Formats: sequence, structure tokens, C-alpha cells
Amino acid sequence: MNSNLTADRQTFVTHLECSLTGERYEADQLHGLSRAGRPLLVRYDLDGVRAALAKDALAARPTDLWRWRELLPVRRTENVVSLGEIETPLIPLVKSGGGGNVLVKDEGRLPTGSFKARGLVMAVAMAKELGVTRIAMPTNGNAGAALAAYASRVGIETIVFCPEDTPEVNVREIAMQGARVYRVNGLIDDCGAIVGKGAAEGRWFDFSTLKEPYRIEGKKTMGLELAAQMGWELPDAIFYPTGGGTGLIGMWKAFDELERLGWIGPKRPRMYAVQASGCAPIVRAFEAGEQHAERWEDAHTVAAGIRVPRAVGDFLILRAVRESGGKAVGVGDPAILAAVDDCAKKDGLLLCPEGGATLAAYRQALRDGEVDEDERVVLFNCATGLKYPMPEAPAWLDRHGAIDLGAL
Amino acid sequence: MNSNLTADRQTFVTHLECSLTGERYEADQLHGLSRAGRPLLVRYDLDGVRAALAKDALAARPTDLWRWRELLPVRRTENVVSLGEIETPLIPLVKSGGGGNVLVKDEGRLPTGSFKARGLVMAVAMAKELGVTRIAMPTNGNAGAALAAYASRVGIETIVFCPEDTPEVNVREIAMQGARVYRVNGLIDDCGAIVGKGAAEGRWFDFSTLKEPYRIEGKKTMGLELAAQMGWELPDAIFYPTGGGTGLIGMWKAFDELERLGWIGPKRPRMYAVQASGCAPIVRAFEAGEQHAERWEDAHTVAAGIRVPRAVGDFLILRAVRESGGKAVGVGDPAILAAVDDCAKKDGLLLCPEGGATLAAYRQALRDGEVDEDERVVLFNCATGLKYPMPEAPAWLDRHGAIDLGAL
Repeated sequence: MNSNLTADRQTFVTHLECSLTGERYEADQLHGLSRAGRPLLVRYDLDGVRAALAKDALAARPTDLWRWRELLPVRRTENVVSLGEIETPLIPLVKSGGGGNVLVKDEGRLPTGSFKARGLVMAVAMAKELGVTRIAMPTNGNAGAALAAYASRVGIETIVFCPEDTPEVNVREIAMQGARVYRVNGLIDDCGAIVGKGAAEGRWFDFSTLKEPYRIEGKKTMGLELAAQMGWELPDAIFYPTGGGTGLIGMWKAFDELERLGWIGPKRPRMYAVQASGCAPIVRAFEAGEQHAERWEDAHTVAAGIRVPRAVGDFLILRAVRESGGKAVGVGDPAILAAVDDCAKKDGLLLCPEGGATLAAYRQALRDGEVDEDERVVLFNCATGLKYPMPEAPAWLDRHGAIDLGAL
Repeated sequence: MNSNLTADRQTFVTHLECSLTGERYEADQLHGLSRAGRPLLVRYDLDGVRAALAKDALAARPTDLWRWRELLPVRRTENVVSLGEIETPLIPLVKSGGGGNVLVKDEGRLPTGSFKARGLVMAVAMAKELGVTRIAMPTNGNAGAALAAYASRVGIETIVFCPEDTPEVNVREIAMQGARVYRVNGLIDDCGAIVGKGAAEGRWFDFSTLKEPYRIEGKKTMGLELAAQMGWELPDAIFYPTGGGTGLIGMWKAFDELERLGWIGPKRPRMYAVQASGCAPIVRAFEAGEQHAERWEDAHTVAAGIRVPRAVGDFLILRAVRESGGKAVGVGDPAILAAVDDCAKKDGLLLCPEGGATLAAYRQALRDGEVDEDERVVLFNCATGLKYPMPEAPAWLDRHGAIDLGAL
């Protein structure tokens, strides 16, 4: 039906390289981190892509994630897996955006309700291509759900570890979709340590954020898609909720590849890495002028998806933010919850707390004059708000009693 | 950004007519039911549409719901409201479909997580166009959420009534999105009675299913979109979860309009109206050869969205099902829950119970030889499975203890 999923297309991966040292690694082999302990980045023959794929050929394809096949690592069409990775909509905020010119990219419309689907659909397809049969992963919830869904679909066994206070809906969703899931009395990096230990013992393949090279290629499609949706004219600023930072790093890579293809010019959005004040290692490192970020102790925030005390791609996040002329910014839980509430009540759009963090950060940036009202800004709502707790509200009516409708 | 939302386009509504008597009503005026107490249908100058809109002009537009503007009732572009009504994906079932050739149209990707967004975006836009300032509606949950979101966005006040056992997530979502919401100790038609009483007293406009003419026009886009997605070749059969039946009636109307436009031929899918055995008024009427369906007493099913004891459009549903050569079929709660579980575990797709009912009905029809394995079938998953209760599942790990990874 959807030709993106069934048509054989030329692929252009040349090799992988260490994001820190540039050391080269063979494509089409199973890799984790580089020998320097850093993420591997996939490199393409972009001249080849330019020759093979014209902008209007791309425009004629269905608009989902797999339309970008020439810029993705999967070699064989039979390994493409899909649960309907649609192009996510850009929704203007009319009343809750503080008067600015702001669009929300609603990633909650993806399979399993979050942007994690972008990374995991690619990583699972590559795991299938490279013969992986058992995967483990730490998760704050949404990544685990996406992994479970895609892995079950292709018949790969999955074991997922999540922090003890992961929302119940996420944990049950993971289990429903065929993964085994364990709650661990700790944070995401405690879960990651268990996964790492098992991987070292050869029990499973480690799917932690940026510890395998392909989630970032999937997340990259956020940048590719945004450029195409906006007529190849990038916004002035992007506010991105930053935990592991894969998406921010991925978008930055996407913009670079698009410029090399000649599809966009050198103009870049200012990238704002948004964190919660209760867990802001990137903000601290940004403000201190550091290249790397130290672990954040006693992390706490309502926005569990960005409660990531330490990010293996910290230097890549910091580099992108600085190169772009953006900032790393922290927002408090009250501002996050107020933004979620305001956006739902006034604009009818129910953000997840992490999405609410980007709105809170944007409104703060508007007030501070950091962003102008007429600048075109995109906020990333990374998951559907339906997965998160909402305040109790309704009143009761007794249909047998005398109801005073005038008082309602 | 999205030209569907901003470009002025010609509109072609000529009038409305009573679905039972054919009596004619003026367009561009506020209407409820017809004088015969039946739904009003919107009629278009389809010759005019054919002259104004070519298939390839349509294909060049963004693929969301508003691309169908010439076949929709909203006159003025300023009244178009949107939260990103994307084209919902068609997802093949690889392992849980019983060996058949079956696609799930995943309507859970729409704003507020359900297909109710299609009907309500249109009804709210028309309410705005016609000057309505206060709306009330009975809901089993999802319709209320969609109403609240769109009405808040355009500044219309909303009051929503739902049965006492409506899932908490739906009730809270409705409140979060700015509606006042009341739980009533009864079923949806008890809620509807309260809404009707207040409307008769002039307190609000009644937005009950099919009691205003435009929700059906929004739901119609399911049929338009399906035809376009499938290359203007309709499937052999459609399994549709049927409560009020607006979508089934709407699709049937869409196919008729598309044939009059010359965009499809006379071939129609067999329409299967799927109900729960615990609330199957349409099935009972279908099997008895009746034109209308009596109220179902003591309605009960896990699929709350199709727990509708009486449908005002009963005769339209029965007519479409019979004309199409389809059937009305009931499935039990155990089969519904088994289908949801199987689809999530094997295909990674978490259906809502109503979507699960269509899968259960399809698998039963396959077994009975009612549908052939190679027939192309579309099931409608009307909402995201994330809004519904899921079984408890996870185990605990103590990171401080000795974890036997080999035993996981």
C-alpha cells in the first residue's frame, strides 16, 4: 500500500565514526559505543544521495518517516518495520503562546504515543538486519513502549528496566506490547547499569540511548521532516526537551546533511535545550562553559522523560546548542504544570510535561527578550499528554433528583 | 503554513434534508433534528465540486482532513479550526489478523486520541460559523474530549455529561481541556436526556450524536480519506465499531458523493457494523429484518464507546449495512479483550476495546467463511489504546541486591 515500506531503494551508508575521535568503523556490522566510549555516528555518501533523489521525487512519496530511506541506514526493504510513522503535525498556539509566533510539533501522534518511536523503529529495523535476537534497555517509560511494540512486531525478545516511579500506564503499555518489564528502585542510570552488566555478560544487546548507533538516525527524521514541512526554510528557534538529547543531536545532524545535499542553506535555528531545574546537568555545563556535563545528583521533576542525570552524548548536545547560538535553559515544575494547563485550557492541546517544559521555557525567553514575538519558533511536544496524571475535576449529577440546569 | 487551513476555497453546500422524509432545510442556519425528529444530511452541488476540484489538485494538498474543504460545510476560512487532523495511517496486521489481508486504520492518532475529533472539529467550526456560544453534549468519553478541545480553542463554552463509569482519564481530559464535566448515574441516553431538556429550555445548543448536522460531515472524511489512501479502490469489507453509527453513515455518504464525482466506481465494501453482545440493538434489528432498532436494556460491555442502547440514526446504519451486503455482528467481551491482547503482543499495536471488537468480529468472520483470506479488509481502531485500563504486569528488582541476570 505505502510504497515507502515496499519499494526497494538505493542506500548510501559508507561507514560509522566515533563522535569524539572521528575513528572509522565498518558499516553493516553490530556496534555499540566507540572504543573511546562515545556514540557512533552513521555517515552517508551524500553526493550519491543528491544524484539519486530529487526534491520532487521525495515530495511525491507518502509523507511518513520511511520516505527518507536514502538518508537512513536500513539496507534491505524486508527489514523495514512500521506501525505508521506519520508526519507529525505543526499546531499553532493561538492563545497560550504568550503572543509569539509559535508552532508545536506534536510528536505524541507517533506509534506508542511518543517521539521515541522514531528512534526505536530505526534501531529495531537495524537490529533485525544485523541479526540481534535479544534486546535490553533502560527507560523512563516511552522508549520502552516503542521498543516493545516494534520488537514484538519483528519477533525480537525484549527486557526493559524502568525507575520505580515510572508512570503505571507506561509500564503496563510496555508489558501489553510483549516485553518483559522490571521496576528498579533507582533512576534511569541505575537501570542502565543493569543493562550494561547483562550486555557485558553477553546476555542481550544494549539498546540504551546513543549506545547503539541507529536511534539517532531515526530521531534525525524530526529535523528532515521539519525542514520539508516548512518549505525548506528552518524556524528561527527550536525548543527541545532534553534528557539524553538524541533528538537534538539528530536534528543538528539532519540540518548538516540537508545543507550538504543543497536542500537548505546555512541558516540554522537557535537550539534551546530545555531541562527541568530539578535535573539540569546540561544547563549547568552550558553556563559553566564546560564541554561535558557532570552527573546531576538527587534529580527530581514532574517531567520524568527529561529526568536524565547523565547523558552519554552531553558534549554533542552542548556543541550543537553553542554552534547554533542557542542556550540550555532550566524551568521549574510549577512553570511546567502551568504551561500544560494553560495550553490545554486555552488552545485545546494537551501537552506532556516535557512538552510543557518547552512552552514554559519559550514564554520565559519571550519575557526576557531572548526571543522576539515575530520570530518563528517550534516547540517539540514529545509525547501525548494522555499518558500523564491529570488533576481530578468532575462533579456528580443524580439523574433521579431534581437537577437545576440553570445552575450548571 | 498548511494551506488547507488558510486558503479560501469555494464551497458547495446547497441545502440540508431530512434523512427520513427528504424534507428540505435551508443551509447556513442553525438546525438540530428535522421536524420528523431525524438527522439532517448536508447536500452539495457535486457538479460544481467536480468542475472546481480535480483529483491531482487534491493530491497536491497537505493530506489532512481540511483538504476536503469543497465537500465540507464550512463557508468561511476564518472558521476553520484545527489541532492537526492528520491522515490516519493504515497498518497491516502481520500476525494477529488470523491469516487474512487486513489493515487497521488507526484513528487514535487524531487530536485528543480518537476519531471523535473528525466529527467535532467540523461541528465546532460550524457552531462558530453559526454563532453558537454555549454547547452541551452527552458522551461516553472521547467525544467530550474532542468537543472540549476544539470549543476551548475557539472560545465556545461547553458542558459535558458522561455515564458514571466513564474512564477517569477521559473525564479528566475533558476538564483539562476547558469544559465543565458532570458524571451522571446512568448511561449515555440518560445523559442525553439532560442535554435535551436544557436545550429545550434554551440553555445551550444540543451537540448529541446526529442531533446537529455536521458531525456526520466530519466523520465522512474517514471514507474520503480511505478512498484516496487506497488509490480510489475501496476495500472488500470494512469492520466498523458501531455505537451511534455516525462514522458508518458518514462513510456510506462519502462513497456516494465520490461516485457522483466520478472518483470511484459503483463497487462498495461490505459494511460490518460491529457491536458488543452486551449491547447489540443494531444486530438484533438487523437479524429481525427491522428498519429501526429498539432500545437495548441493561447494556454492558468493556467497550464503553459502543455501549449505546439506542441510536437516533438506527435506520441509516441498517440501510447502509444492508445495501452494502454486509452484516451487523455482535462479539463478546472475552473475544474483544483477547483480540486487544493478541494484537498488542504480536503486532505491537495497542487497540482500544472498540477497535479490538472489530478485530474479534473479523477473525470470527474469517473462521465462518463470511470473509475470504485474500479479501482486502479495513478495521477501524477508533481511539488510542492508551486511554483504557491495562492489566498489571511488572516485577521488581532491587538494584542494591544481588540480581541474577541469567534468570531474567
